[in-house]
Amino acid sequence: MRYPNGKIYSKDKLNLDTSIKEKKHYNLKDNASNRGMGLEEDISNSCEYYNNLNVCLIYKRPTPIKVVKMDKINKSKITEAYFSSKSTTDYNGVYKGKYMDFEAKETINKTSFSFHNIRSQQIEHLSKVTKLGGLAFFIIRMKAYNETYLLKYSDIEPFLVSKLRASLPYSYIKENGFLIEESYLPRLKFLQAVDKAFFGM
Amino acid sequence: MRYPNGKIYSKDKLNLDTSIKEKKHYNLKDNASNRGMGLEEDISNSCEYYNNLNVCLIYKRPTPIKVVKMDKINKSKITEAYFSSKSTTDYNGVYKGKYMDFEAKETINKTSFSFHNIRSQQIEHLSKVTKLGGLAFFIIRMKAYNETYLLKYSDIEPFLVSKLRASLPYSYIKENGFLIEESYLPRLKFLQAVDKAFFGM
Repeated sequence: MRYPNGKIYSKDKLNLDTSIKEKKHYNLKDNASNRGMGLEEDISNSCEYYNNLNVCLIYKRPTPIKVVKMDKINKSKITEAYFSSKSTTDYNGVYKGKYMDFEAKETINKTSFSFHNIRSQQIEHLSKVTKLGGLAFFIIRMKAYNETYLLKYSDIEPFLVSKLRASLPYSYIKENGFLIEESYLPRLKFLQAVDKAFFGM
Repeated sequence: MRYPNGKIYSKDKLNLDTSIKEKKHYNLKDNASNRGMGLEEDISNSCEYYNNLNVCLIYKRPTPIKVVKMDKINKSKITEAYFSSKSTTDYNGVYKGKYMDFEAKETINKTSFSFHNIRSQQIEHLSKVTKLGGLAFFIIRMKAYNETYLLKYSDIEPFLVSKLRASLPYSYIKENGFLIEESYLPRLKFLQAVDKAFFGM
């Protein structure tokens, strides 16, 4: 069995839940065959679109990097640095005065979204944001169906905390998530989903 | 004339408004003579204190760094990178559900706070946050008086936009700012000032 572009189909790939960061290599390969952008790029472009319209201000959090050494001649050049493990979620910002904070994940699994994709720091962080009245959620893309959902952190928390399940079934995502409409501009109309999920609109 | 630690007094130094980033070198020298922490450290420590009490969640924004080259053997080691100019303000987070965003600055000037310390990107950013209903402000420390004030962005905006003045007079800061009480823990009780400034408490 082959993909439309002629690549040989690999069953392993389809069973593997992959975080965006891991996906990057995959997408680089994908781009060569024009199979479309990744979720992270879709969201960043949509944020830029919304930000320019002044309806919100949402940015991708810079990855924390610990700088160890600078170049002696070129003062803006860093010659030794390390990725810090302190990072929390991907995006945060302001919408309707409220604090908004979310993490984006995609999976190629057909039946569920594995919790292995979510780090304990991210759970702790989004739990605190929720308690403080912020809008905390995940944007989860089910690549097999080309569907992207907003899932409120509070709707997933019981699963994450109880640890009774290692994944969120696709049926639960369909039922409790808010399907994000896609368009040309913005690529993902995720603020519509935010309005439904948090403002009952 | 000399400082208590024996250093020779420099009149130039007192006339120079200095941003926190520029102050870092100065503080490094200061620490050796135990003249106390800088504003940035005071704020970061106070955020940590408040965050641990779960009354808010405020973090220092990581400095955006553009990674160019990684080490071939040590996969976590960055060997070439540059500071990006895209950075906006120092801190953001959530308090009482609201989005909070602020910039910290200190000056050793006795009569005013110079607007040269504030970059146009920061003005644009805080203006947008204000329009979107977020809590946008500056924390300004007048080192000469050992006083730290919260100044709402909306109270400074007319000065920043009109460009009629190059600085904010100390008298204006005293009258329109909210003095931040200092203590041992937290070092700066800035949430009290936020309550007064934005929640009329």
